[in-house]
Amino acid sequence: MREWAVELQNIVSLDPVWREKARERLRKQTRPEGSLGLLESLLERFVAIQKKESPTTDPKRIFIFAADHGVTEENISLYPREVTKAMVLNFLNDRATISSLANYIGAQVTVVDIGVDGDFGGDSRLVDAKISRGTRNMTREAAMTSEELDQALQIGWDLIQQAKKDEVKLIGLGEMGIGNTTAASAVNAALTGQPVEAMTGRGTGLNESMLQHKIAVIKRAHALHEKNFSDPLKIMQCVGGYEIAAMVGAVLAAARFSIPIVIDGWIVTAAALVAIRLNPKVLDYLFFAHQSEEKGHRLILDMLEVKPILNLSMRLGEASGAALAIAILEAAVRIYNEVATFDDARVPNRKDNPKTVPTEHHKL
Amino acid sequence: MREWAVELQNIVSLDPVWREKARERLRKQTRPEGSLGLLESLLERFVAIQKKESPTTDPKRIFIFAADHGVTEENISLYPREVTKAMVLNFLNDRATISSLANYIGAQVTVVDIGVDGDFGGDSRLVDAKISRGTRNMTREAAMTSEELDQALQIGWDLIQQAKKDEVKLIGLGEMGIGNTTAASAVNAALTGQPVEAMTGRGTGLNESMLQHKIAVIKRAHALHEKNFSDPLKIMQCVGGYEIAAMVGAVLAAARFSIPIVIDGWIVTAAALVAIRLNPKVLDYLFFAHQSEEKGHRLILDMLEVKPILNLSMRLGEASGAALAIAILEAAVRIYNEVATFDDARVPNRKDNPKTVPTEHHKL
Repeated sequence: MREWAVELQNIVSLDPVWREKARERLRKQTRPEGSLGLLESLLERFVAIQKKESPTTDPKRIFIFAADHGVTEENISLYPREVTKAMVLNFLNDRATISSLANYIGAQVTVVDIGVDGDFGGDSRLVDAKISRGTRNMTREAAMTSEELDQALQIGWDLIQQAKKDEVKLIGLGEMGIGNTTAASAVNAALTGQPVEAMTGRGTGLNESMLQHKIAVIKRAHALHEKNFSDPLKIMQCVGGYEIAAMVGAVLAAARFSIPIVIDGWIVTAAALVAIRLNPKVLDYLFFAHQSEEKGHRLILDMLEVKPILNLSMRLGEASGAALAIAILEAAVRIYNEVATFDDARVPNRKDNPKTVPTEHHKL
Repeated sequence: MREWAVELQNIVSLDPVWREKARERLRKQTRPEGSLGLLESLLERFVAIQKKESPTTDPKRIFIFAADHGVTEENISLYPREVTKAMVLNFLNDRATISSLANYIGAQVTVVDIGVDGDFGGDSRLVDAKISRGTRNMTREAAMTSEELDQALQIGWDLIQQAKKDEVKLIGLGEMGIGNTTAASAVNAALTGQPVEAMTGRGTGLNESMLQHKIAVIKRAHALHEKNFSDPLKIMQCVGGYEIAAMVGAVLAAARFSIPIVIDGWIVTAAALVAIRLNPKVLDYLFFAHQSEEKGHRLILDMLEVKPILNLSMRLGEASGAALAIAILEAAVRIYNEVATFDDARVPNRKDNPKTVPTEHHKL
């Protein structure tokens, strides 16, 4: 049995003592109670994951898992398959959107070839974990074998375990793969039992007739594989992708090794959802970066009862939403560590607070 | 006539040529068209305001206008009036929430005493522009005289004009003043004609009975002054505040001098709304940071047809939402300046794009 499968059961719930410590500290800082809104609940979890008086976000590492998809044979994307390889080179050359964002927040970027249809000639800037040159066409057969699925999960797991050894304090998860909104839609619809129509969006910008075609392709794949849909890992094997499977392993490992992990958009959410099905405790460790413009994302976030950090109508992938959300998280952590308490700063607290410092102007 | 009143008519609409230049550049970068969502429309305006091939955000300056309010006599806040002064000291000592956020984004912070009920002993870290030790009680008389209103507007104007001379490239606007959600609600209800109930929220955390009391107080003030409500400046004079009036001047000047300006939350929005009523062209220069948890903010943003950058259920003020939104804006500007084009990076474009680089794998 692979390590990820053994360790899966060792993921623990967040410590309520640390959650309360975080709440207490936030209450004492010079602000009206609750006035940081969502940031307060994010901080509460962040502190309870790290279990440190002074939580930290550095070093932070963004992973981009890249792979190709057999289903591109069905003409479900506006962009040709070779864009996957070209964009990987763009990431390595530090010239993509995520490059600017990662540099802005000061994050390391690790690009992982887990199944790109192209040769990178041993480029040392890339993690070479290629399983094959893309998955199989899900409308004809399972996207991957069970051995390949297992391999992908373990690769994701191992990279996070290495990050733990490197003392990485915050992880962002993203992906690149032409055709992978189709795979993510197929996975998310199968996992949730929602109609394919509700879980399929325009990807990189399909028009209405291409969208209808994409929906029909996913329905064909579902019809072929639905007998396996009671098992989340079988769903991943049949209609998922190498990069999505690797991210399942990454999410599980982040939870197991107590590293806060930021989930990018639609495709990473498919990976997160599989991980949550394998062990619901995973959810406490996840920070959903943004609500993607991709149809169905909001529904899944609602089902998970999570409020994403951002909602900018983005639909890019490549961890771009995760990087922006990390900026917000980092700023929040800085607030947590630095802001004065009412006592320290001699700021009068609420009139109805017994600790209020009375002064001659005090009116009630 | 004051400078702000003369110059008000010299605010111009954004140049459509620069807007198109920005759109064109975004289209050429290695991303699916439109995939940055809201960031693209923000960048389009940002570039058209600065009219530069390579827009810049540094140096950036955050203003916090602080003042007290006569209406605190009516017991409409959970916190005592002296919190305004104490928080100003907290800002100056770099220990408040905005301090951490401003340091995170690398912004200068200028704290302006425009009417705090307290003495700062000539503290050189503070801009001393005190008009008086707080406005008058709006339930009994106009919050300020027309001379005081004029003075406040001019102070806001002058500080932005100075920022222009200092080559500041991006401004964030925030405030501090116990009682000022009451003033902002009174202003926003009067400006929009919406019921006071729809425009009055819990401020720093009122319970239901205190909220009802706050609404009743604002209604009393409205009853006294409503004969003047056809004039936005009269509304400001009767039920506004010094800090809110100064921010009207600041917003007008930012538009006049073409500096992008980030609007914090509920109270700054009241200032922005007055400025927009004085000259609707102002709106193009404004970046609404976040949707505040304060009731009524969403309605006003909807009326203005603007989508805020963030929606984190915050209700703190002190430019905290503006600072977080500036991080997002800065990251967006960095993308605009740095990301490779399809041509530069030799990334194949859409299959249906005539500029697509054909390759042997190209399927359609």
